[in-house]
Amino acid sequence: MRISELSAESGVSIPTIKYYLREGLLPQGQQTSATRAEYGPAHLRRLRLIRALLEVGRLPVASIRKVIEAVEDEDRGVHEMLGTAHYAIGAQVEPQPGDEDWREARETVDELLAELGWQVTPFAPTRDELAQTLVTLKRLGMAAERSDLLPYATAAMRLATEHEMSKIPFDGPREVAVETLVVCTVLYGRVLDVFRRLAEESESARILGA
Amino acid sequence: MRISELSAESGVSIPTIKYYLREGLLPQGQQTSATRAEYGPAHLRRLRLIRALLEVGRLPVASIRKVIEAVEDEDRGVHEMLGTAHYAIGAQVEPQPGDEDWREARETVDELLAELGWQVTPFAPTRDELAQTLVTLKRLGMAAERSDLLPYATAAMRLATEHEMSKIPFDGPREVAVETLVVCTVLYGRVLDVFRRLAEESESARILGA
Repeated sequence: MRISELSAESGVSIPTIKYYLREGLLPQGQQTSATRAEYGPAHLRRLRLIRALLEVGRLPVASIRKVIEAVEDEDRGVHEMLGTAHYAIGAQVEPQPGDEDWREARETVDELLAELGWQVTPFAPTRDELAQTLVTLKRLGMAAERSDLLPYATAAMRLATEHEMSKIPFDGPREVAVETLVVCTVLYGRVLDVFRRLAEESESARILGA
Repeated sequence: MRISELSAESGVSIPTIKYYLREGLLPQGQQTSATRAEYGPAHLRRLRLIRALLEVGRLPVASIRKVIEAVEDEDRGVHEMLGTAHYAIGAQVEPQPGDEDWREARETVDELLAELGWQVTPFAPTRDELAQTLVTLKRLGMAAERSDLLPYATAAMRLATEHEMSKIPFDGPREVAVETLVVCTVLYGRVLDVFRRLAEESESARILGA
């Protein structure tokens, strides 16, 4: 298809498509004449992925580039590719190894994950993200005990295995796997967060007889 | 205590305390001379609440003011007061009643909550927040069925009743109830979100044999 059709099909404007082409986020089409290029389904898939990373993941272009690089580098396995997207959509946390609270929180995270038997690389920045949240809780005088965390880990694992990862087409095009992961992780995360606040309102009404 | 002690105890700088006093977020101390005022535990509690709303809830000052007004207005019951905080920490969503997708999503939300028997006011903006997320999922070609949503609702209710609302001291000072609600909702929400991504990584490693 021509760029105008690619634009119509994807809902992405022609100037934006040209920007993605210049930035290397979208591969060039097949040149059929000096002023004309043909685009195909792979371009459509790539545009959908960029849109998901941008609008749903709210990633800056630099992070989108990293994810796209992982998608394009077929030497990287699917697991590593998905990891790139995972780490990109997390909060960017600066580890504070010199801080006593931080070190203790990070130890709690590592011990808990080991105990749960989860397969998470030791270098996952998600470990730091969790550690930082534990530090914040502690500093607000609401330090989380192991027993406060376990129910969240259990609920998260159930949802991740039964409802999120089961939606990912591992055998399809690499773009589709990453797009599904990002959309499921972010949007069902939002669904869960809103449900928690709705449930809290309901429970507050029940307790207070409102 | 004097303002310098209030600052030392709360960790909030004197200029910031003076700003909160001017803005009416913090009540004036008891004037003991022309240049001196006495502050007490209620001021400390209020500063803790402001800090939680600001740093954890990431609320702008205008929203903090609304929450503080609800805290100060003892004619409002605790349930209504907590609702003010709840609605303030949510994403501010503009309802799109003219949009067909939006109307359908909002209907799904209302039916689901009715079916679950949750006590949520019909005017809760959280309903719109959930509807908007459903619209986004649909537009990305991943429309959520009732069966996709129910496990999230169930998990959310369990965590809300067993672990979040049970931490709130309903009989204590109003500030403490609101502060606990905001801290638990936001920070355990973050805990849950990070655990989901950790669980997904682990499940991806398991499925792909990485």
